[in-house]
Amino acid sequence: MNQSLSIVKIGGHILDDPIAKKDFLSDFSKLEGLKILVHGGGRSASALAEQMQLNVQMVNGRRITDAKTLEVITMVYSGKINTSIVAELQGLNCNAVGCSGADANSIQSDKRPVSDIDFGFVGDIQAVNSSYISLLLHADLVPVFSAITHDNKGQLLNTNADTIAATLAIALASEFEVTLYYCFEKQGVLEDKDIPSSLITSIDQSRYQDLLTQGIISDGMLPKLKNCFDALEGQVSKVCIGQPSMLSSHSTNYTTLTL
Amino acid sequence: MNQSLSIVKIGGHILDDPIAKKDFLSDFSKLEGLKILVHGGGRSASALAEQMQLNVQMVNGRRITDAKTLEVITMVYSGKINTSIVAELQGLNCNAVGCSGADANSIQSDKRPVSDIDFGFVGDIQAVNSSYISLLLHADLVPVFSAITHDNKGQLLNTNADTIAATLAIALASEFEVTLYYCFEKQGVLEDKDIPSSLITSIDQSRYQDLLTQGIISDGMLPKLKNCFDALEGQVSKVCIGQPSMLSSHSTNYTTLTL
Repeated sequence: MNQSLSIVKIGGHILDDPIAKKDFLSDFSKLEGLKILVHGGGRSASALAEQMQLNVQMVNGRRITDAKTLEVITMVYSGKINTSIVAELQGLNCNAVGCSGADANSIQSDKRPVSDIDFGFVGDIQAVNSSYISLLLHADLVPVFSAITHDNKGQLLNTNADTIAATLAIALASEFEVTLYYCFEKQGVLEDKDIPSSLITSIDQSRYQDLLTQGIISDGMLPKLKNCFDALEGQVSKVCIGQPSMLSSHSTNYTTLTL
Repeated sequence: MNQSLSIVKIGGHILDDPIAKKDFLSDFSKLEGLKILVHGGGRSASALAEQMQLNVQMVNGRRITDAKTLEVITMVYSGKINTSIVAELQGLNCNAVGCSGADANSIQSDKRPVSDIDFGFVGDIQAVNSSYISLLLHADLVPVFSAITHDNKGQLLNTNADTIAATLAIALASEFEVTLYYCFEKQGVLEDKDIPSSLITSIDQSRYQDLLTQGIISDGMLPKLKNCFDALEGQVSKVCIGQPSMLSSHSTNYTTLTL
């Protein structure tokens, strides 16, 4: 049997809250075995953009990443957040290494083609160089990825952190027994998004189709669950969605997805 | 004989000029053998601090790194500059990996003790974990260090890039035949700082003492040359100071320092 590997995606809202962030990093540092952390950026990038008086361009509720916005995102995700997470994890005796997809060409993307909308410097992942990530894991290091990739021609690209986590999980599934965790502020997938007790603890492929048909999965959960099932179809062993407390083995309050 | 390793420190003024930066990265990417790049930040950090309307506190001409300034420096050095250098080098077929001293606890510092002046979050290097850097080098990867270290207790620290380069060179000198290059906008050590043709091409320990006595080495060159001789005393084979063109084997217009 392959060695087990946990890939944990942490959502922006948790990083925005210093106490929640500290608790999460403590839980993450205690997680046994090989592990990778993937993070987005939360509100920090928008806050800095505002402070720099940049116009945030939105189309259909989605932010356009122009050159100045990409610079802000790179500063906040790969500079402020990534570097400080690595230092905090080191302080917790977790041997972290900060990474962007440009490092060792670990995650290569293409700039999203312009169709109706020009999203700007947004990357769609094309390839993962898992040999570099394996090198770090086999040296008992803990890669911490920011949501920045590159096109291997010198251009950095803003890339969805959920997709990075799923793509890394799939790329490493041939070498490791991978569990993918999506940590966010909610308990997991809820029947009614306003009622925490409506948590669905287990979803398989057929239940997923039912939930889609019933419109219970909507908005931000749609791409998240698509990433989960893409990962499962890509030989990832298990996917869990919930609050960071799910990383402790005592917690059962989260959603587990299987094929 | 040990494998040769080039450690190149690039000065901020060159990074501030897009054409000079591009030329430098092209020269650096062509440098044969194992190599490490160390960079500072130039004017970008001050520019962002101004844009964010932070007060830059100076004491005796030296910047004080308060918490907000450290955040800006981390964003600019480890975010904007480091990540974009890595992407540009990847585009030049150079297998770069971005690093701060917090990664794998590679460079551990102590916060400078408060005496007459409280410099704030400034780090004096205590230890280099060369096993991580060796792991990267032996995998034919090219570490690119920003001038950020940590105290291994969760705190990032602003650290002099010249000192980082010299300290890395000394730490790796037992395993590699190290040449240390300080690249900046001048041709090297000049007899008269306003006359480029007054270049001193070669300085040994006794000439160094003469130049110090004569006051020819002053201001910013004082700590730079101290770093050079510290490196040479720490078994670094050779130290060169000059413009980036010295990285090409055809150039002879620079200062070489030996014991």
